[in-house]
Amino acid sequence: MKLRLGMIGGGEGAFIGAVHRIAARIDDEYELVCGAFSSDAEKSKRSGIALGIDTSRAYSSYKELIEKEKQLPEDQRVQVISIVTPNHVHFDPTKMALENGFHVILDKPMTFSLAEAKELEKVVKSSDKLFCLTHTYTGYPMVKEAKQLVKSGKLGAIRKVYVEYPQGWLSKFEEGGENKQAEWRTNPAKSGISGCMGDIGTHAFNLAEYVTGLQVTKLCADLNIVVEGRKLDDDGAVLLKFNNGATGVLTASQIAAGEENNVKIRVYGENAGLEWQQTDANTLKVTWLNKPAEIWRTGAGYVSSFATHNTRTPGGHPEGYLEAFANLYRNFALSIKAGLEGKQASPEALDFPGIEDGVRGMAFVENVVASDQSNEKWTNFNV
Amino acid sequence: MKLRLGMIGGGEGAFIGAVHRIAARIDDEYELVCGAFSSDAEKSKRSGIALGIDTSRAYSSYKELIEKEKQLPEDQRVQVISIVTPNHVHFDPTKMALENGFHVILDKPMTFSLAEAKELEKVVKSSDKLFCLTHTYTGYPMVKEAKQLVKSGKLGAIRKVYVEYPQGWLSKFEEGGENKQAEWRTNPAKSGISGCMGDIGTHAFNLAEYVTGLQVTKLCADLNIVVEGRKLDDDGAVLLKFNNGATGVLTASQIAAGEENNVKIRVYGENAGLEWQQTDANTLKVTWLNKPAEIWRTGAGYVSSFATHNTRTPGGHPEGYLEAFANLYRNFALSIKAGLEGKQASPEALDFPGIEDGVRGMAFVENVVASDQSNEKWTNFNV
Amino acid sequence: MKLRLGMIGGGEGAFIGAVHRIAARIDDEYELVCGAFSSDAEKSKRSGIALGIDTSRAYSSYKELIEKEKQLPEDQRVQVISIVTPNHVHFDPTKMALENGFHVILDKPMTFSLAEAKELEKVVKSSDKLFCLTHTYTGYPMVKEAKQLVKSGKLGAIRKVYVEYPQGWLSKFEEGGENKQAEWRTNPAKSGISGCMGDIGTHAFNLAEYVTGLQVTKLCADLNIVVEGRKLDDDGAVLLKFNNGATGVLTASQIAAGEENNVKIRVYGENAGLEWQQTDANTLKVTWLNKPAEIWRTGAGYVSSFATHNTRTPGGHPEGYLEAFANLYRNFALSIKAGLEGKQASPEALDFPGIEDGVRGMAFVENVVASDQSNEKWTNFNV
Amino acid sequence: MKLRLGMIGGGEGAFIGAVHRIAARIDDEYELVCGAFSSDAEKSKRSGIALGIDTSRAYSSYKELIEKEKQLPEDQRVQVISIVTPNHVHFDPTKMALENGFHVILDKPMTFSLAEAKELEKVVKSSDKLFCLTHTYTGYPMVKEAKQLVKSGKLGAIRKVYVEYPQGWLSKFEEGGENKQAEWRTNPAKSGISGCMGDIGTHAFNLAEYVTGLQVTKLCADLNIVVEGRKLDDDGAVLLKFNNGATGVLTASQIAAGEENNVKIRVYGENAGLEWQQTDANTLKVTWLNKPAEIWRTGAGYVSSFATHNTRTPGGHPEGYLEAFANLYRNFALSIKAGLEGKQASPEALDFPGIEDGVRGMAFVENVVASDQSNEKWTNFNV
Repeated sequence: MKLRLGMIGGGEGAFIGAVHRIAARIDDEYELVCGAFSSDAEKSKRSGIALGIDTSRAYSSYKELIEKEKQLPEDQRVQVISIVTPNHVHFDPTKMALENGFHVILDKPMTFSLAEAKELEKVVKSSDKLFCLTHTYTGYPMVKEAKQLVKSGKLGAIRKVYVEYPQGWLSKFEEGGENKQAEWRTNPAKSGISGCMGDIGTHAFNLAEYVTGLQVTKLCADLNIVVEGRKLDDDGAVLLKFNNGATGVLTASQIAAGEENNVKIRVYGENAGLEWQQTDANTLKVTWLNKPAEIWRTGAGYVSSFATHNTRTPGGHPEGYLEAFANLYRNFALSIKAGLEGKQASPEALDFPGIEDGVRGMAFVENVVASDQSNEKWTNFNV
Repeated sequence: MKLRLGMIGGGEGAFIGAVHRIAARIDDEYELVCGAFSSDAEKSKRSGIALGIDTSRAYSSYKELIEKEKQLPEDQRVQVISIVTPNHVHFDPTKMALENGFHVILDKPMTFSLAEAKELEKVVKSSDKLFCLTHTYTGYPMVKEAKQLVKSGKLGAIRKVYVEYPQGWLSKFEEGGENKQAEWRTNPAKSGISGCMGDIGTHAFNLAEYVTGLQVTKLCADLNIVVEGRKLDDDGAVLLKFNNGATGVLTASQIAAGEENNVKIRVYGENAGLEWQQTDANTLKVTWLNKPAEIWRTGAGYVSSFATHNTRTPGGHPEGYLEAFANLYRNFALSIKAGLEGKQASPEALDFPGIEDGVRGMAFVENVVASDQSNEKWTNFNV
Repeated sequence: MKLRLGMIGGGEGAFIGAVHRIAARIDDEYELVCGAFSSDAEKSKRSGIALGIDTSRAYSSYKELIEKEKQLPEDQRVQVISIVTPNHVHFDPTKMALENGFHVILDKPMTFSLAEAKELEKVVKSSDKLFCLTHTYTGYPMVKEAKQLVKSGKLGAIRKVYVEYPQGWLSKFEEGGENKQAEWRTNPAKSGISGCMGDIGTHAFNLAEYVTGLQVTKLCADLNIVVEGRKLDDDGAVLLKFNNGATGVLTASQIAAGEENNVKIRVYGENAGLEWQQTDANTLKVTWLNKPAEIWRTGAGYVSSFATHNTRTPGGHPEGYLEAFANLYRNFALSIKAGLEGKQASPEALDFPGIEDGVRGMAFVENVVASDQSNEKWTNFNV
Repeated sequence: MKLRLGMIGGGEGAFIGAVHRIAARIDDEYELVCGAFSSDAEKSKRSGIALGIDTSRAYSSYKELIEKEKQLPEDQRVQVISIVTPNHVHFDPTKMALENGFHVILDKPMTFSLAEAKELEKVVKSSDKLFCLTHTYTGYPMVKEAKQLVKSGKLGAIRKVYVEYPQGWLSKFEEGGENKQAEWRTNPAKSGISGCMGDIGTHAFNLAEYVTGLQVTKLCADLNIVVEGRKLDDDGAVLLKFNNGATGVLTASQIAAGEENNVKIRVYGENAGLEWQQTDANTLKVTWLNKPAEIWRTGAGYVSSFATHNTRTPGGHPEGYLEAFANLYRNFALSIKAGLEGKQASPEALDFPGIEDGVRGMAFVENVVASDQSNEKWTNFNV
């Protein structure tokens, strides 16, 4: 039985909406039944038709979607709503959807501000519906393996974390032209107080906390607007202190000319280190103090149930970004279905990013910006 | 509008059936409406239910499927049939499906023998239905880019081709136990006269002819049964001569301990060479005589329309095996739809492997086996 | 004609002394004629014998070496003195050697303190003898190529620099045992106020300034003593600001478990970026905004005279650490010989690290330590 | 005490002579005392002066060198003679040198023909002097480690060997111009009956037999002259059968456009495989059936005495081609010195290529050419 899925945002020309839909289809756990793909009613209709949705369910606003769907019989009504709008249109539809009895999948960063994030946390906690935030990188099997390896204690106590996210696509003043992505992502009215750190720094931050199981307690940030005329940071570096005494360095840049999207994390413990990067996503390198480094691979027989659960093909068939994204959708579906069936979802299914990740992500953005503006070296990580 | 898809084979426990279904879903061009998932009626029914198919359309044999579907109204009837059975059950259902007016997607190697392949060629040629053979590797954007680069003449006349396909999964006598894959792939009654060369050698061969646009005219093969008790070759090497005078070396092995599935091709022309391998599928390395080697990447702005057409995400978001597979499904769908709309499909859409690839693949198998058994160095590539 | 070389330090069991001697031999520009290999007269003698030196010229102190050699006839007397003692025995012998008319090659970091470094600068500037500091990494052909590429302007104005130096060899409390390297490198009395930053951070810093041609103006440092009981930092991270407005991040660690010595630099300009790392020392990756990344290689025909000059073999024959080291020795010799012949040395020969690098390196150490101890975010880079 | 070294060939402009001299210097085991660097007396003199040799010992022919040196007092006389001339001038000087009491280091391929090789074998066996053939690749620490791993039995019985040597430098008709290397290496009068196979195929062959400890018993070769006008093969592929039943594929090419010199070997046993390539010379990859692949590294604590003995620096300091070459020189010197001291040289020291490697190398050339000309698939490997 497929879950009935609706989408807010993601109409014509939107990159991430299409990614969400592919992710939802890969494992056949969802059926797209409705959407408010655009605030322009005509466009939304057109997108709905292109996506094979009944035209009566291609709405012109998220409000209309939620209100109308609620009136449908329970066995036709949408069950899960994906929200893929720019940041400033995250909070309201998410809140309304949850309060009206729909599960929500929300694109990151979670909200426009930390205040919104904390309010949303209350909504989620008082709701009996589930919430998923699409920190895609945590969906990669080898990232999950990394987390399990740390958790197993094989690395020993964690001492050092390096996480980086270099991109080059904003090396020029792209927002002047027809690049819609550049337009809203560099626009404070749509993206909030940070550009680069909000967009990709939050991914790096989430990855660091996810893999290590640690939490950042202090940070020291330096943000830059490198390209003249730009309104938000397009580059930055952050020194980190974690709650176990470990330290770290997070870098994110959108002006690293020629870099694509190679998010990378390295974690070092007392006995061993590990390294994962998106360009070689099916490999996890484990480095040991006194023996050869090891190359752990997606689909291999020796990996944990968390990696295996999130893999569709035998070893040697590369799974990529879309499959990582699909893992979030699938795990969310499995968790919802377990609920519908009155069962307990498995730990593997429940391992998707949620409201706490979102709150901490927004706190990261605000603390980073505060630190950047401060002359003090260290800023406490306030939530 | 989605094409209505049926499937023969691919029931519980089958690896490749699941892959076909994911591939069909990724781009939303198909809706699975029926299947004969197993020759065991109960199993087929169970698979159908699991896949959300109307139980009346989960058939117990391909004959039943084709006959019953034919009786359905045209706008409900299946349009495309995927056949994912072992090799010995390829020819009959494909022939019957085509002759009854259904498009066919068939898993490779195409048939049990070259004779069957040539007969099937006649069927396809006399049919007005389309036929696709799933040589997955030709679906990778960077493999398509490689073909376009060769075609553009930038490499100069092609002189040398190295293609290799190392696996290690049959290093032990796996067919004795519960490994169903090992069971049928090493069984002459199901796989035909060759194991390794039929299963993966054909992929390597197809990749070589696809990328270079050349045809093999002579070959010299050495096949081995390395693991004691095995009935078909599990390793082999083939020297190749091409129709333009170039030479090549093809190796395939299933006893390369510790290797996953890293199919790799290198092609050298007068001025430049290129290299692609599945473990780094989004990269195409181009080596020049007198300037730095170049790293061409999936999703980049500078690649050809053939690569771009087969990519879903911007540069830096790795696409993998399932997306390559999906490219075959999508291009096949686009070509069928163009036909339904009375239009000419684009060259990019029409670029999927077909009956000629299948005939040449089966000829490869028979010629390789013949060469292996011959004391003559060179065996003509007979079709 | 070979230059007559003497060595201070580097006796039995010393790692770096042997490296210096190999570096001196590779290009046959030097003949080792004397040494004060140890402050223990017996040991020094023994080392001298092992090295094939006339026993009368194996001295028991640097003072003796300089005094006795000075009394030899000019055509027998040592010409160049290599000083490879721990940091606290750098200043005095270097000063004395220069003041007595000998050229000096000195191991880094240059001195025990910045004050010493600045005093040494005066000595060097008032001397007519040459001085070389062994920042080895600047001797790699592809590092030189990187510098030339930046200088050529092809990358555009530099915006971002990442430089890192991860090691894992001090992950445990090694200084308790028989590890002589660990002993002195973690001992403030021998190494000065910093361990990790003095030992390898200075290399990373020098590499960043060398490749970019820029200078650090401000920094923000966080140093750590990770291993319990250790007396000096074994890990650290530094945010950097450069004199053209670019920013950077420098990390150095000796507790990155399983890492060897993979110093790595990435530099991004307006149009392109470059990446070099020691584990793949003969490759320079150049990433472009709108065309394929390029792989520049040692020994290729297209590289600059600075790379070619520092390479001994045709492309494809990997040159490594010892050859990089030898490049410093060779360029120093070529510069000295040009002087002896009253000629101007070539720009390629003169491209070796000198006193300014040393002063800036010691300033780096002191500023980093000051910044680490400060609550202010930014510390001016004072020299 | 250094061994007194002489050189035949290797004058101005010769690439390999300079490499030999660097290799001899790196470990300080030799002192170059004489040479017949060119058959042109003036040139030889000039080279001698440039190399700092007493002009009286810069001879104009190898005969003169051997005769004159023999007349010198034993403690001044040359002890080891390096012969670095083109192939057709290998046999005579080697024979004469050995018969007159000098140890010989000879560049590969050993002789002009197999007949010469077998005659030389008799000379070596009846002499009490040592003989080393410079198959450089066996000098790499990680190649030695590979051999030890195979020998240890950890891989299980060897089943498959792939060895390849791709170069691109003869992609054009280089021998027409001023390229001296191209001139003699493509000239049958100087290189013998094979170009590519003699020059680099022999290296690949030697590497395969060295690492596996196996011997080729049959082969099937296809050689090509790809570039119009060339007189010797510039490309080829060879199927191999080994004496334990394993099979292999050897490829060598000088027209693989854009390739440098990336000799690579892969060996698969029942339980594991290994992979080494020159571009990443300090890494040995070991692939296991059911556990993560391992990255073994030069200089690590866990490698065998054979790797450690052939390494000068701690892990992470890349050693390259010149150090591999130097390992041959050093081991040869250690073996000679052991003899001079009446001791048994260590197994590590004795592990350098010798006369048997040379005979088998020349047999390889002749058998490959015979096989290429035969219509029979398999040619016995005759020695």
